[in-house]
Amino acid sequence: MDTLHVALGDRSYPIYIDSGFPSSHLMSASIAGNQVMVVTNETVAPLYLAELLSLLPALKVDHVILPDGEQYKTIATVNQIFDQLLAKQHNRSTTLIALGGGVVGDMVGFAAACYQRGVDFIQIPTTLLAQVDSSVGGKTGVNHPLGKNMIGAFHQPRAVFINVATLKTLAKKELAAGLAEVIKYGLIRDSQFLQWIEGQLNHILQLENSATTRAIRRSCELKAEIVASDEREQGVRAILNLGHTFGHAIEACTGYKEWLHGEGVAVGMLMAADLSARLDYLQQADVGRLKELLLAAALPVKPPAKMAPADFMAYMAVDKKVLDGKIRLVLMQAIGEAFVTDQYSPALLAETLDLFCQS
Amino acid sequence: MDTLHVALGDRSYPIYIDSGFPSSHLMSASIAGNQVMVVTNETVAPLYLAELLSLLPALKVDHVILPDGEQYKTIATVNQIFDQLLAKQHNRSTTLIALGGGVVGDMVGFAAACYQRGVDFIQIPTTLLAQVDSSVGGKTGVNHPLGKNMIGAFHQPRAVFINVATLKTLAKKELAAGLAEVIKYGLIRDSQFLQWIEGQLNHILQLENSATTRAIRRSCELKAEIVASDEREQGVRAILNLGHTFGHAIEACTGYKEWLHGEGVAVGMLMAADLSARLDYLQQADVGRLKELLLAAALPVKPPAKMAPADFMAYMAVDKKVLDGKIRLVLMQAIGEAFVTDQYSPALLAETLDLFCQS
Repeated sequence: MDTLHVALGDRSYPIYIDSGFPSSHLMSASIAGNQVMVVTNETVAPLYLAELLSLLPALKVDHVILPDGEQYKTIATVNQIFDQLLAKQHNRSTTLIALGGGVVGDMVGFAAACYQRGVDFIQIPTTLLAQVDSSVGGKTGVNHPLGKNMIGAFHQPRAVFINVATLKTLAKKELAAGLAEVIKYGLIRDSQFLQWIEGQLNHILQLENSATTRAIRRSCELKAEIVASDEREQGVRAILNLGHTFGHAIEACTGYKEWLHGEGVAVGMLMAADLSARLDYLQQADVGRLKELLLAAALPVKPPAKMAPADFMAYMAVDKKVLDGKIRLVLMQAIGEAFVTDQYSPALLAETLDLFCQS
Repeated sequence: MDTLHVALGDRSYPIYIDSGFPSSHLMSASIAGNQVMVVTNETVAPLYLAELLSLLPALKVDHVILPDGEQYKTIATVNQIFDQLLAKQHNRSTTLIALGGGVVGDMVGFAAACYQRGVDFIQIPTTLLAQVDSSVGGKTGVNHPLGKNMIGAFHQPRAVFINVATLKTLAKKELAAGLAEVIKYGLIRDSQFLQWIEGQLNHILQLENSATTRAIRRSCELKAEIVASDEREQGVRAILNLGHTFGHAIEACTGYKEWLHGEGVAVGMLMAADLSARLDYLQQADVGRLKELLLAAALPVKPPAKMAPADFMAYMAVDKKVLDGKIRLVLMQAIGEAFVTDQYSPALLAETLDLFCQS
């Protein structure tokens, strides 16, 4: 078992990476009170809920099974968690456990942030995307019809338990979507890691244990470092949003139903690379290299045909990074060096949008 | 103008107490960005919204008018604030302003805590209850059908502007409800203040400026002290809930429609005093003295006739202070000395409930 550490003072917590679920003992050590509410969805429940419940024998354990899908990442669904917590009389010392992908994790974290003004929660991510990204760092929340993750809180988990074996039951499309975030870490902070991913891509896609574990471990390390230095995204943490401003626009414009988050991020990263090249930061060869990697990972490289530049601009205008009316973007000075800027020519952004929206 | 200070490190803020709204200059100094969303309700809007808007000339100002009443203190109503913030493209540097009573303040604070994972807000309380209690201390949230304030966050305002003159438009019933919280401060922490209130009650009920201002100022001072020593209610802050466990049960059982919060607290404080006397902390004379003061302030001293002891027990079981199945209560060791305890005989609690539920 690998153990990493997210250093956040009295909100610090461990990330355990293993090829199975944690022992009952390790699990219990992360639970302060005697009440637990496991929250999962209808896809994950038949696969892993019984096994997880068997690890929590000595506690009062209840569970909620939510519908599966980004379109259910809403306040109304979080309210279902509150309903169960109150119906089963969970108090301030309860612990919520998120068993599932990023949607479950984000909603459970938000429910934990708000229930009785804050209770503990644990992340047990079962998708690659959740394992390398959303389960670490304490960003929680839900979507609003006018924008993704617009309602939420910073609320750190007590522990993250990553069981790499759960990826075996993951749809290929979901695996690819998670890979987009793995690739992201290379692009923003570690060009050597990017090179390693390029070389190991097929091993990762085949879920070979050592390659998968290393990809997850390095991604979590990079995320933990960035989060530890800027928990509430006052500065550098924003580089974790590479590709997300464009990607969120795609997700919102398609009603969070057709595109997976990682798929939107994949296209968004390529758009950010294209704009970075227009600004003379990247070479065209870098853009081509990224496109090749995304294609090899079976990720999309173009937005949906129905989207026009004006659609992007409308959704991007409500991005959380907008400041004083200017859309701030995460761009790359070089492969492995992302930065946040509002210093770009709107005309060049328009060129990027035009290029990608051509049919 | 009086100025107090809530000392909470980088979340510290001033409370201004004046007989009018703040100057445009003072107001602007508390607003970091260039966007403002004023949130008020349909009762307060016709009285004060135009005047407040006139103080914010240089900014992009939008507003939302919510329905009035505790029964609207719900996630659905908070969602109306999110809808407006997103429709009007407010970003992370926006400031929300709560203009109204405790219901408006609690919801606006919660909306500010969650919008884009946290934006600034300012409290402009227009009821006595909000001026002496709910606008100070950062407790925000909404009710759930199964319990009051069950969903929320700790989120401190940037400033609190108290305009004592707004009490002139307040219904007598609302003024009395606010007085219950003023009396509470005397009971929990300052027996001299309680004595002063007894002597000045008629001057306060007549809204004589010096008595009213002093009552508000001393209440805010005591609250600021307690909050500064225990922001997230890990310990002593819970004494601010004197009477609230009983009171919340009354509010929940009557659907948050018939009883004002302060009315429930009034009865609850008397019940807590009765139980404190049964435990030999208070004298029967102390209980009688409190009852007299509540009656003189036109506050209720009995729960609604339809409530039985079992109703109290059912609602109290989900109180946020419940720990490991035991209902913790705020009681008094003496007038001016409240404490939190789960060391009481259930039989004595039952006696108190029986006495107050007799028709």
